[in-house]
Amino acid sequence: MPAHTPPAEIVTAGMLVIGDEILSGRTKDRNIGHLAETMTAVGIDLREVRVVADIEEEIVAALNALRSRYSYVFTTGGIGPTHDDITADSVARAFQVPIDVDPRAVAMMEARFPGRPMNEARLRMARIPEGAELVDAGGMGAPGFWIGNVIVMAGVPSIMQTMLAGLVPKLAKGAKILSETVRADAREGDIGTELRAVAEAHPDVMIGSYPFTDEGGPNTNLVIRSRDPMRLEAARAAVVTMLAGVKAR
Amino acid sequence: MPAHTPPAEIVTAGMLVIGDEILSGRTKDRNIGHLAETMTAVGIDLREVRVVADIEEEIVAALNALRSRYSYVFTTGGIGPTHDDITADSVARAFQVPIDVDPRAVAMMEARFPGRPMNEARLRMARIPEGAELVDAGGMGAPGFWIGNVIVMAGVPSIMQTMLAGLVPKLAKGAKILSETVRADAREGDIGTELRAVAEAHPDVMIGSYPFTDEGGPNTNLVIRSRDPMRLEAARAAVVTMLAGVKAR
Repeated sequence: MPAHTPPAEIVTAGMLVIGDEILSGRTKDRNIGHLAETMTAVGIDLREVRVVADIEEEIVAALNALRSRYSYVFTTGGIGPTHDDITADSVARAFQVPIDVDPRAVAMMEARFPGRPMNEARLRMARIPEGAELVDAGGMGAPGFWIGNVIVMAGVPSIMQTMLAGLVPKLAKGAKILSETVRADAREGDIGTELRAVAEAHPDVMIGSYPFTDEGGPNTNLVIRSRDPMRLEAARAAVVTMLAGVKAR
Repeated sequence: MPAHTPPAEIVTAGMLVIGDEILSGRTKDRNIGHLAETMTAVGIDLREVRVVADIEEEIVAALNALRSRYSYVFTTGGIGPTHDDITADSVARAFQVPIDVDPRAVAMMEARFPGRPMNEARLRMARIPEGAELVDAGGMGAPGFWIGNVIVMAGVPSIMQTMLAGLVPKLAKGAKILSETVRADAREGDIGTELRAVAEAHPDVMIGSYPFTDEGGPNTNLVIRSRDPMRLEAARAAVVTMLAGVKAR
């Protein structure tokens, strides 16, 4: 297989974060980082994230853009019992399928929360687009759902994490991207020219440069990523050799 | 002016976060929350955020989508000295303008960092699209820049915050969205039906419902937002009355 042909086992994901509270700064998102880490750990490439407000047209447009591009789209937020929770209806509209109260979701909620009346607001949380599978929230809340390649999860981080943990075994996974980090003990600007030469000599490997500062002053982590362990090791060795050369000057 | 006409003083923003390290989960973004808070504080509506990888086509496409929709677009990330820092070149391509080493940026960097050689890597940080104004990083690093309605900032949070603080006085601002938070002392599902009625009676006011849990158990914050202080107060009072009614049942 030519080096430029992506292997068939690449699985991709997009993410849609839904909620005025993230865009106003009132709530700090913690789901992007958690989904990103989880996807990397299981071999799915998270390629894009969008954050949109609680506006149906915005949700539908972003969802349709993302679901046509990536293997999976994960959404967080907007599946609670109040009027501002419009994710389920927006997903149904994006897929052009009907949506109604789903008896499976009602049964799940009644079993989990026997003391709480299934009033109009809570029934809203049981509205599921036709054809979707439920996503279990464990004992933590109403279910999410999975329709087509779109997986709808809660916005509360602990519930989102519970849902995602249950979903992971069911996802198609690709070959994991392997990663090595080399601490440069140098400023980015002092090694950038030489690092570019290494990157150009190893085009199939991703090399990222991330400055940080600690008690020793400005420093840089060089992160080398590849699905191929031999290419990864060749690039890592080249980075180490390059750093030794720069320091010997 | 009819109620549905947006007042002229609405200023909007989009944000583009650039970097493989956010999408891989290696780095947790802290700039979205800071920009969101800052925009809210000065009366600019942050409407959408996108996170994309270090891929020129992705950056250009996202930038063009956002800059056509919002008053301002803020980018973070990808302006360092290494080969994976491609934001400046991507912005130049999006605007279809030339880009080259900018003597103003070189002078700024030489003045700030007299001990550091302006090698090829550091000169890369001085590449600025034609027609852009520089954005000062204080003593913290190379400059960002401002071209058209796009403002390019560093990804390192402390540098991004310094740049943004310097930019705020220069931005056009709209009328601030005022906000009141009412703690419901109730579960979301127990007030959702009644809250919808309040929201429908106050269509010009945004009412958000945010569940949380503390030592008292599940609870809900109701956040009422409006640019109009009288409408805000009317909706707040209606929420308080609604809550009292629910509790008296």
